[in-house]
Amino acid sequence: MTIGIIGGTGAEGRGLAARLASAGLPVTIGSRSSERARDTIDRLRHTVDRLREAPPGLLEAASNDEIAERSDILVLAVPFAAATEMARSLGARLKPGALVIDVTVPVRFAGGSPTLEAVPEGSAAEHLRARLPPHVRLAASLKTIPAALLGQVNAPLDCDEFVCGDSSEARAAALDLLGRLPGLRLHDVGGLDAARMLEGMTVLAIRLNKIYRSRAARFRVVGI
Amino acid sequence: MTIGIIGGTGAEGRGLAARLASAGLPVTIGSRSSERARDTIDRLRHTVDRLREAPPGLLEAASNDEIAERSDILVLAVPFAAATEMARSLGARLKPGALVIDVTVPVRFAGGSPTLEAVPEGSAAEHLRARLPPHVRLAASLKTIPAALLGQVNAPLDCDEFVCGDSSEARAAALDLLGRLPGLRLHDVGGLDAARMLEGMTVLAIRLNKIYRSRAARFRVVGI
Repeated sequence: MTIGIIGGTGAEGRGLAARLASAGLPVTIGSRSSERARDTIDRLRHTVDRLREAPPGLLEAASNDEIAERSDILVLAVPFAAATEMARSLGARLKPGALVIDVTVPVRFAGGSPTLEAVPEGSAAEHLRARLPPHVRLAASLKTIPAALLGQVNAPLDCDEFVCGDSSEARAAALDLLGRLPGLRLHDVGGLDAARMLEGMTVLAIRLNKIYRSRAARFRVVGI
Repeated sequence: MTIGIIGGTGAEGRGLAARLASAGLPVTIGSRSSERARDTIDRLRHTVDRLREAPPGLLEAASNDEIAERSDILVLAVPFAAATEMARSLGARLKPGALVIDVTVPVRFAGGSPTLEAVPEGSAAEHLRARLPPHVRLAASLKTIPAALLGQVNAPLDCDEFVCGDSSEARAAALDLLGRLPGLRLHDVGGLDAARMLEGMTVLAIRLNKIYRSRAARFRVVGI
């Protein structure tokens, strides 16, 4: 099973790659140039204890185009606007049956205050689903976890997170993958329509970060 | 300061009334008939230890109409559709400067799965704001806390909750009131546009309740 992270050089993609590789899963980091992706891998090998002695195949570099073509699971770790563009431009290259995982949030900064951007389909995930080819499956997750926290690869996650998707297969595959991240309690919350709830929560977390001068606001579910 | 709860005989209103009265705040419970409100008060006096010996003025009964006319703070503890109707029918009776607190959630059960109902204004709170007269202020809160949990008046809340509102005055007054509820950590999350985030979270909590057969799913913010 090939796992690729488009936008793997940003905080979120880099953090996710490092955490999955630390759990023993081979991951390919993508960037517009594979050189930048290689630099990121070099840095991760120097900063993450568990990756220092990792075999070369555990973290590989590639261009976003290559990743789109060869991944069984593909994480779109780029801002929402870029993800939309990529769904359109890379969509046709994706493997039949590939799982795309959307982690984006349509956030807008109105007068300094983070606000949920209105998306005609109701959520970023549904917007992407409408632009991806029918031969791939889409799940959405990791939305409510701050990118900055994911990027601090040695910081524990210690929170709850949610998975929704266009099919039970998509959700099961995403749960299987993300279940390898330590400190995360995952919940399957159903169809892609749940993404609008998760994206709203994320904007709330960003707002809380601003209020409390934090970069790590996230959620725990209690009472279940 | 007169506090009235419209729909005070339902789980949410009853629970809120009992918890505020237990904290020493006089509360008037409203219902379509003040007789039903009186029955609710009798039951609360029998089931809540701290209310057994409470002076008569601590919990009073009235009709919704009376409550609308005399309350400085008015909680609309009725379902969203009813709250919309009340904002229209009772709006003109409200005291100038009164604070209305909206706790409603536009939830729809589509094929057994709780879903966020699309509201043209973006949220139930903004929908109500558009229907209330300009001489009252509106805050939204208690949305993410399950009505069933609030209604179990001896169960600790032990969670985080959020307040948004149409003005800093509305939010401050709501925070001041709800800050009297034990076990609740409150956050001022800004303007009424935040209500769409809170309502989405609530539908997520309802979905989690369904999945885990609970009635108490709610949230704690971590990392701030």
